[in-house]
Amino acid sequence: MSSRQWCLVQFVGSNRAQPSVGVLADGEVGRAPEPLSGLTLLEVLDRWAEFTPLLRNFQPSALEVIPDVELVAPLTYPRKVICAGANYYGHAEEMGTHRPDPDGEPFFFLKPPTTTVLGAHDDVRLPERADVDWEVELAVVIGAGGHDIDERAALDHVAGYTVANDLSARGLFPRKDAVLAPFGWDWFQHKAFDGSCPLGPGLVPSWQIGDPHDLTLRLTVNGEIKQEASTADMVITVPRLIAAASRVLTLEPGDVILTGTPAGVGLPRKTFLNAGDLVVSEIDGLGRLENRMVAA
Amino acid sequence: MSSRQWCLVQFVGSNRAQPSVGVLADGEVGRAPEPLSGLTLLEVLDRWAEFTPLLRNFQPSALEVIPDVELVAPLTYPRKVICAGANYYGHAEEMGTHRPDPDGEPFFFLKPPTTTVLGAHDDVRLPERADVDWEVELAVVIGAGGHDIDERAALDHVAGYTVANDLSARGLFPRKDAVLAPFGWDWFQHKAFDGSCPLGPGLVPSWQIGDPHDLTLRLTVNGEIKQEASTADMVITVPRLIAAASRVLTLEPGDVILTGTPAGVGLPRKTFLNAGDLVVSEIDGLGRLENRMVAA
Repeated sequence: MSSRQWCLVQFVGSNRAQPSVGVLADGEVGRAPEPLSGLTLLEVLDRWAEFTPLLRNFQPSALEVIPDVELVAPLTYPRKVICAGANYYGHAEEMGTHRPDPDGEPFFFLKPPTTTVLGAHDDVRLPERADVDWEVELAVVIGAGGHDIDERAALDHVAGYTVANDLSARGLFPRKDAVLAPFGWDWFQHKAFDGSCPLGPGLVPSWQIGDPHDLTLRLTVNGEIKQEASTADMVITVPRLIAAASRVLTLEPGDVILTGTPAGVGLPRKTFLNAGDLVVSEIDGLGRLENRMVAA
Repeated sequence: MSSRQWCLVQFVGSNRAQPSVGVLADGEVGRAPEPLSGLTLLEVLDRWAEFTPLLRNFQPSALEVIPDVELVAPLTYPRKVICAGANYYGHAEEMGTHRPDPDGEPFFFLKPPTTTVLGAHDDVRLPERADVDWEVELAVVIGAGGHDIDERAALDHVAGYTVANDLSARGLFPRKDAVLAPFGWDWFQHKAFDGSCPLGPGLVPSWQIGDPHDLTLRLTVNGEIKQEASTADMVITVPRLIAAASRVLTLEPGDVILTGTPAGVGLPRKTFLNAGDLVVSEIDGLGRLENRMVAA
């Protein structure tokens, strides 16, 4: 983040009570402006329209730094985690599928919000026999809910953006059982395991981000670049994803939409994560996740 | 329910504040024993082990009836809604699949907990172009969480049982898009629409139910019987479902596991629900849901 940028984080104090919202700027965590201080980020999002004028005028230069805080995920936990599959041209190509249709209907799957979200520095416990793969993604956080949202007004429903890693258990998704083969992929075993959604470090308000389709994503494993691409390679755009999801269900404040991953995942290369690996997922202007893989 | 049975419900008073837990017995709603009164059922489930001795000794004959209450779903909302697909022999047969394997791995999908759950008498708004189908199911409510739960101890994690209708948008699940066809069914469009999980009327504590695999399920549409079967026809049993789900993720108090539906759904007969239809889903000993379908 540039020196003038900031994001909303959640931290816990030494008493490990409910997380409180704070501000991360220039690597330091400070108090959120009143009356946000003491609320969770989900409570802030429930009153996003009310707080927006205050936050737009907030100056991180006046930050009252809080010593000895531990950052947790910005949402602990979201109301829903809705994920778009096969939504970058490069990723669709590396998976051997046909060229996807930007005017088509997205393919969404769900992660359970209460058990998958981790913070930017949390360890990920690798499930056994899972062949865990990485997927850096732009995460869209909803600030104003709605149903049947018009694509042209969809960005007005966005509170901000953050970084996600949609960790995937590749070893478990194909179902060869005769009775279940028509169902296709097993998204539950594939995508719902504990800790499979590192998220953070904080919510960057939407007005700090010009075009969500002009951001550089990058993922490294032990320092080696695995994914590096622009959100311009996204097939179905953020407004269209919001509109499509809201045709099926009511979006609520605190919902998170993961917008798909670019090329460079492990599956086509038969390379997966091992205990000890450090995975850094970052989006320029949004920040980075640094998650260590550990044995189950 | 027989006259000696009771279940835990949630009701709202005239001020429509947060729901409170109550007791339903003989068709009347009464106060829950102290100190449960004023808590939500989720809060009760978070302290299930603490409250179990009190509830085991509770006598509904001493019920202090509350006038003019409106029942809502017993959980508003659950932490997770985890659903087993193709888990009755009769249903697998009517869907034209092979005979499923009781020793196999279940196939789970997720419903978003905050927007799908409705109460026993709530209307269901039918989504457009969806061909909505019915699926009466035994719902298992978790009272003690855990990961890697042993099948032999799994029923100790169950707080109780209730009735669910896993409403399904059949018109939207097949994805013919070339890029997405390998993914198989679109479980998000198929199963995640608003109001697709009527649940209730209340949580029947596990000790009131002998064998969860000896219950009669029944579903009628406008009085005509569509489904009538025993939970004995379930392929993968409740303890095995709990063990399998908990191998993927941590089960928490307030999680709901839907255990699959018996034969008699609309899809093989090309019969779907229309606005005005009354769907009654019931399980003997657990109670019934009466949900009216209405236009979107």
